[in-house]
Amino acid sequence: LSRNVASLALVDRVQAGDPAAVARLISRAESGRAEAREALARIYRLAGNAHVVGLTGVPGSGKSTLVAKLTEKLRAHGRKVGILAIDPSSPYSGGAILGDRIRMTEMAVDPGVFIRSMATHGAIGGLARAALDAVDILDVAGFDTVIIETVGVGQDEVEVARASHTTVVVSAPGLGDEIQAIKAGILEIADIHVVSKCDRSDANRTLVDLKQMLMLGMTGEEPEWTPPVIGTSAISGEGIDELVTMIDRHRRIAFETDSGMIRRLSNAVFRLRKTADNLLLERLGSVLADRGMEFPMRLLRREVDPYSLANELIDSSFPREHAHEQDARSKLS
Amino acid sequence: LSRNVASLALVDRVQAGDPAAVARLISRAESGRAEAREALARIYRLAGNAHVVGLTGVPGSGKSTLVAKLTEKLRAHGRKVGILAIDPSSPYSGGAILGDRIRMTEMAVDPGVFIRSMATHGAIGGLARAALDAVDILDVAGFDTVIIETVGVGQDEVEVARASHTTVVVSAPGLGDEIQAIKAGILEIADIHVVSKCDRSDANRTLVDLKQMLMLGMTGEEPEWTPPVIGTSAISGEGIDELVTMIDRHRRIAFETDSGMIRRLSNAVFRLRKTADNLLLERLGSVLADRGMEFPMRLLRREVDPYSLANELIDSSFPREHAHEQDARSKLS
Repeated sequence: LSRNVASLALVDRVQAGDPAAVARLISRAESGRAEAREALARIYRLAGNAHVVGLTGVPGSGKSTLVAKLTEKLRAHGRKVGILAIDPSSPYSGGAILGDRIRMTEMAVDPGVFIRSMATHGAIGGLARAALDAVDILDVAGFDTVIIETVGVGQDEVEVARASHTTVVVSAPGLGDEIQAIKAGILEIADIHVVSKCDRSDANRTLVDLKQMLMLGMTGEEPEWTPPVIGTSAISGEGIDELVTMIDRHRRIAFETDSGMIRRLSNAVFRLRKTADNLLLERLGSVLADRGMEFPMRLLRREVDPYSLANELIDSSFPREHAHEQDARSKLS
Repeated sequence: LSRNVASLALVDRVQAGDPAAVARLISRAESGRAEAREALARIYRLAGNAHVVGLTGVPGSGKSTLVAKLTEKLRAHGRKVGILAIDPSSPYSGGAILGDRIRMTEMAVDPGVFIRSMATHGAIGGLARAALDAVDILDVAGFDTVIIETVGVGQDEVEVARASHTTVVVSAPGLGDEIQAIKAGILEIADIHVVSKCDRSDANRTLVDLKQMLMLGMTGEEPEWTPPVIGTSAISGEGIDELVTMIDRHRRIAFETDSGMIRRLSNAVFRLRKTADNLLLERLGSVLADRGMEFPMRLLRREVDPYSLANELIDSSFPREHAHEQDARSKLS
């Protein structure tokens, strides 16, 4: 109870913009403990003002450097910037990402910038549940722009689009996988395309290829917005102003148009689904623990197939039909 | 109905070892259609004879080449070998894996070898549900050894261990991430360690490092089996015989000892959990679809937080407490 009260006290300090309180409440969200729940519920109801920008791209595309440059520029415009760097659980990429990250630490002394690394460990689909809470915490703490940076190694890049208002997809020349990436659905999730490292001589080809691919994929479904392709260079600073302009322009789409409302509603569907998925699977976990080894033993002896057994388990533990009847009855009474 | 009958007819042909029937039933399992369910249920009850070997390692560790060499050797011993190559959904690694794969196609003309690539798309945790069905199909078709090859880029390497009797983890010299890989839990899942490319001059250091790490991690929990470290070379053929010997030896552990039974029971728990997870989430999906946009709109307006809303949704649609009462009542009557 006292930790619950302490978590609620953190909400006031988060609202006042206290970075230590922000960090602590994110940690409590990550630990997933029940005592943070009431605080996070309050945070959720207070949030909704920040512009959430998802930024994704393949390893080596210079995402972290781009985020650093973008943050500098947004700071120059007086914006407070929160950054959530989502590291995949995979041990194989962790090192490189962290190395990139260190270059950004000079910004950590600026109170208008908050950087946090989060792991995806065990999350369904990639983006950790706590990352969505962290976005809200930064929002309530007064950060105008919250950047969610993810590595595009699977499900993450799709999830980040469903958790953000504006999705930036970063490509780089010479990685040789642009076309594959585009084929696999990156095309649809990008609101803004960036080709980084445009100081390189092979960058122009990547720009041209990407633009051609985008023309082929045009569906004309969202006439309010055509995803631009921006070439950037961290060395010359080229394209960063244009990126900020486009991000601002897309913010207006997200908050002031019908298609933006539909996007935000679809984000809410995703958030509800993700939360409900986790909750329901937790309950299934405790049902299975209660049942002991009887069911698995039947499976091991191959008396019954997994599908029929799972069906039997769920029908007896989560009886949907009865639920509907009870629903109907309680509506009648 | 007629497709259901056709699927059931496939089971007889699978039992007779018809490779076309094997391929077709795997496709039906992948498509997840209801008409394959009865056939897959029958397959499951018929299966249980094959030795399932999971083989995982980082990209570039030479897994595909090793699988090819291992398969050659198992064929020389008269074994029929089924190979499931699990490709991550990520577009970024697909190309390289497929390239490796092509080198194996000469074996595709041997009726004692069956190779199939499967995507992980959308599967919880990585390993597709259909992959587990495919193992059973190959088992029923008379393949003595079924190799599940996965790329260790996250959850997969842990899942493959929970779906196999024997797990082989492949490392390679010069990749520089052995230590990170070991830290992250690869150590615990391996029944057999392979260091590939042992013709390279830096291979010995990798072997020594790995052995030292393993000594540090020894818990003495499973005295029946100490995971060996085998150096292999696809060029000289070194180590492949030893690998086959160790795989055979571990097969006996899996099928003839108590710890092997516990492992197979834990695999059954995993299989049941995975199937039940999918089924329950499907039901949640249809509950959410029935509810329409009322719940997401409440979330979008920030009237309620995601956790409370998900709780409300699940309590009204999957009432566990009532289920327990009904259970108790039906036991009494």
